[in-house]
Amino acid sequence: MKIAVLPGDGIGPEIVAQAVKVLEALRADGAKLEMETAPIGGAGYDAAGDPLPEATLTLAREADAVLLGAVGGPQYDTLDRPLRPERGLLRIRKELNLFANLRPALLYPELAGASSLKPEVVSGLDIMIVRELTGDVYFGQPRGIEVRPSPTGGSERVGFNTMLYSESEVRRVAHVAFGIAMKRGRKLCSVEKANVLECSELWKEVMIEVSKDYPEVELSHMYVDNAAMQLIRAPKQFDTIVTGNIFGDILSDAASMLSGSIGMLPSASLDAHDKGMYEPIHGSAPDIAGRNLANPLATILSAAMMYRYTFADLATADRIENAVKKVIAQGLRTGDIWTEGTRKVSCSEMGDAVVAAL
Amino acid sequence: MKIAVLPGDGIGPEIVAQAVKVLEALRADGAKLEMETAPIGGAGYDAAGDPLPEATLTLAREADAVLLGAVGGPQYDTLDRPLRPERGLLRIRKELNLFANLRPALLYPELAGASSLKPEVVSGLDIMIVRELTGDVYFGQPRGIEVRPSPTGGSERVGFNTMLYSESEVRRVAHVAFGIAMKRGRKLCSVEKANVLECSELWKEVMIEVSKDYPEVELSHMYVDNAAMQLIRAPKQFDTIVTGNIFGDILSDAASMLSGSIGMLPSASLDAHDKGMYEPIHGSAPDIAGRNLANPLATILSAAMMYRYTFADLATADRIENAVKKVIAQGLRTGDIWTEGTRKVSCSEMGDAVVAAL
Ligand SMILES: CC(C)[C@H](C(=O)O)[C@@H](O)C(=O)O
Ligand SMILES: CC(C)[C@H](C(=O)O)[C@@H](O)C(=O)O
Repeated sequence: MKIAVLPGDGIGPEIVAQAVKVLEALRADGAKLEMETAPIGGAGYDAAGDPLPEATLTLAREADAVLLGAVGGPQYDTLDRPLRPERGLLRIRKELNLFANLRPALLYPELAGASSLKPEVVSGLDIMIVRELTGDVYFGQPRGIEVRPSPTGGSERVGFNTMLYSESEVRRVAHVAFGIAMKRGRKLCSVEKANVLECSELWKEVMIEVSKDYPEVELSHMYVDNAAMQLIRAPKQFDTIVTGNIFGDILSDAASMLSGSIGMLPSASLDAHDKGMYEPIHGSAPDIAGRNLANPLATILSAAMMYRYTFADLATADRIENAVKKVIAQGLRTGDIWTEGTRKVSCSEMGDAVVAAL
Repeated sequence: MKIAVLPGDGIGPEIVAQAVKVLEALRADGAKLEMETAPIGGAGYDAAGDPLPEATLTLAREADAVLLGAVGGPQYDTLDRPLRPERGLLRIRKELNLFANLRPALLYPELAGASSLKPEVVSGLDIMIVRELTGDVYFGQPRGIEVRPSPTGGSERVGFNTMLYSESEVRRVAHVAFGIAMKRGRKLCSVEKANVLECSELWKEVMIEVSKDYPEVELSHMYVDNAAMQLIRAPKQFDTIVTGNIFGDILSDAASMLSGSIGMLPSASLDAHDKGMYEPIHGSAPDIAGRNLANPLATILSAAMMYRYTFADLATADRIENAVKKVIAQGLRTGDIWTEGTRKVSCSEMGDAVVAAL
């Protein structure tokens, strides 16, 4: 198995180094793993003038899986739009056809205090959000900023994007979502805005069609505004959620904040053949970068997801996840999840502890 | 002053009746008010085969302000799309040019327990969301469902909508939002997704241009995914928020849920001449309709907003709001906000109590 390791910017290199430690420990144990590192995001721009350098994309294409840190930083904010770090991220998703983004929102009982929600509202929280990642208003054509005649005479600029889903795009992510719901609580909630948008109307229709193939899964439908409310009011009503790219961007961030410990949450972005890119949900945290303070657990748990979804090696996935649970149970905490009575450790100490707990 | 009273569906007639009681009490006190009732939503369909009957629209055009209850109900869910209750709502917004939707998210100290968030996270919460209401992907052209060639050969359906903002649309809602921020904490946060969408890029540029006219207001920018997180993590960081139609739909519902008592929250939708439509944020609640159980306070507070924004009579607006505070302080509660130790009252009893407290 070949892994393309893309540390990216900010805390990216530090947290990825810890996940690599874990992977190396597994290799020392006999796992056949090859790893190769390449720059992406701001680091790609610095190295090759491109947030997704050609060589990085080639490596990612050849690899079985990609491990990504995070991209972005204030020093890149003034670059031309196509050169900005986020563009590298959007392009690699699209180029590798990673249409299914899996974002778990999970509460670790020991960290319940970190949530801004009442303990009884979030205790035991375990939601999986499946976000479509290569369509919608993110990629729809036409798009741009143009000068057009203005209704009051004269002319003015308009900015526009196209929200668009085709049947086949909805169908393939629907199958992924139903498949995941089958392995979880068999409840799938499809979120859209079909009372207003034709794009959502088609989404909903195709979800209903695909549901015929999964009679054991209970499919429900919810408007996105209501879903945002329900995630706050009573998040435990959800098991698996499936939604489009932009609604998924918003709702999955909201859901990940429910636990209060976003430094713990991994994600997977899969293509049709279980090739995947794995990355923490959190960002590049430029404010603490390079100080060995970041929480590497979301990245380490992303490596676990890699074993689960791309390598289909559930035992090793469980092994990594159990090691993380163990260090949490031992009371080790990086600064972001530290509370009175627990032991504050650095990013690399946390990585070492997980390796020891493997 | 002429008010078009549009009760709508579900609990609409019951809650509007209580607000009308309050307005009648003010009239008995000398206020010059004329009120005329007309059907909208499902009631419009039942009466005239149209969720926005021509006569209702004419009345609303002639009136200085519109008081709306709520629209929608399960019996209308199978109607053709253009006949559904929501379409009446979307059309009246557009026809009356009600481009600025003001949605306060406010916590009543006595009701803090109803929130799913920890008391310290929401105590003193007071956010005003200004949502653009007549543009964006809600109304952009082209839109539809079409058969197009599929990438794998053959053809398939695609559903599409156009997310679009013109400079002038952004500018006018920006002026409303800066004006409101001036009267509040002088902090305005503009929410968009300018790292991905051109439509948002133009939005952000125009916000920055307009901010030059309001040097006392501190303008900040936030991506919509981050805003959804921050509303959950630390909502009190916000004073006034301005955003587009679809992001505003999602975020204002999320914000209104922070208080846990959505039955308390009013809204205003204004045109360029302070004409407005006033309605509670909550929906038509078909499950409790006709049983005198609904909370009329959001509708009564909508009447207070009418005095504040359309009639520019701040004293009367304060008078209504103080009467509502008084009945809450007296311990009166409808079922949705009832807790041990308070007195449960019906919808009409609550209306009577507010009239008595005026
Ligand atoms: C950085 C940005 C382009 C990206 C997105 O909007 O998809 C991020 O918010 C995410 O969710 O991965
Ligand atoms: C009913 C629906 C069309 C409407 C909207 O999306 O604007 C509602 O959610 C609202 O926020 O007033």
